[in-house]
Amino acid sequence: MVHSTEFEVATHGFGDVIDVTALVAASVEQSGIMNGIVCIANPGSTAGITTVEFEPGAVADLKEALQRLAPEKARYHHNDTWDDGNGFAHLRSALVGASQAFPVRDGAIALGTWQQIVLLDFDNRPRRRKLVATVVGE
Amino acid sequence: MVHSTEFEVATHGFGDVIDVTALVAASVEQSGIMNGIVCIANPGSTAGITTVEFEPGAVADLKEALQRLAPEKARYHHNDTWDDGNGFAHLRSALVGASQAFPVRDGAIALGTWQQIVLLDFDNRPRRRKLVATVVGE
Amino acid sequence: MVHSTEFEVATHGFGDVIDVTALVAASVEQSGIMNGIVCIANPGSTAGITTVEFEPGAVADLKEALQRLAPEKARYHHNDTWDDGNGFAHLRSALVGASQAFPVRDGAIALGTWQQIVLLDFDNRPRRRKLVATVVGE
Repeated sequence: MVHSTEFEVATHGFGDVIDVTALVAASVEQSGIMNGIVCIANPGSTAGITTVEFEPGAVADLKEALQRLAPEKARYHHNDTWDDGNGFAHLRSALVGASQAFPVRDGAIALGTWQQIVLLDFDNRPRRRKLVATVVGE
Repeated sequence: MVHSTEFEVATHGFGDVIDVTALVAASVEQSGIMNGIVCIANPGSTAGITTVEFEPGAVADLKEALQRLAPEKARYHHNDTWDDGNGFAHLRSALVGASQAFPVRDGAIALGTWQQIVLLDFDNRPRRRKLVATVVGE
Repeated sequence: MVHSTEFEVATHGFGDVIDVTALVAASVEQSGIMNGIVCIANPGSTAGITTVEFEPGAVADLKEALQRLAPEKARYHHNDTWDDGNGFAHLRSALVGASQAFPVRDGAIALGTWQQIVLLDFDNRPRRRKLVATVVGE
């Protein structure tokens, strides 16, 4: 069995961290799949998908670490190509990864109690992001 | 076909790197699935899953790199929230990723000869970690 | 339904970034699978898989960032073990990840217009890399 869902999330950009766990969990629930794999992706090159404990402190730590890894104001060759000023966003997306897969077991995503799936929007402007969640299993 | 397994691993925490390849390979073998995808996850927000050549040198290099990326003794906003002192562990987990998927081909995980699947336990104490491996295929 | 493909890519090593999107898309097309998940991996411990806008600027930014994270000329314990001088390659592979999964929707990989799947070959010599792409779905 396969179940595919597309949904939109509004972001502020600039490293905005959005908890999308409930949206992915709803896709799994709608699928009726009890055991399998769910893959969640942002089709795009300036965002990332990972997990974090979604509390303001851990979220701030993650934002600061990505600012150290790929500072917003550094010089990027990408900006020379397109002059769109979001080279840092492309770099962060490549380092974090734009998709992630998780096991689904007994109808639930294999996440810890304090672990949330997050969309990181690194672009330098607010965006409406489309996400795709696909569940494969039985 | 879907096959889901749960297993426990004892760790020392503090960046402990555990080779879980044999456990994931056993899940694949038990499944009887010859071609498909296996997804392995630690449900939790202070551990990570990746691959590395599991020899003491490469493992030490990985530990040192993560110590540079998210030093144990730095100041973390997460520690202000909960006072549990493991902000570095949450950050490392978000950067490395808590799950990973691999192709299964001809009954084996698509790994190189010198490549092992590892659980990285970043927490600041020994833990018993539950891992979930789900194989989907035929 | 499951469809598994293996293909080879020639690289220059030393962080070479190769656009493999067309090869993965061909695997999806050959599979006839319209909705599901595709998992792409390099079986090996000195390469990585991620996505990036494949234009010279963003590619150069990614290479430079990985050079900062794991400099080619730094001292690595792995080099003490094997004396093969590619400790930086092993470290980069563990940090970036050697495989990634993406949703397949309406017969296409869930990628953005400016987003390509890339193989990063970190090894310190030219290589012929084998990649495995497995599609599961219907």
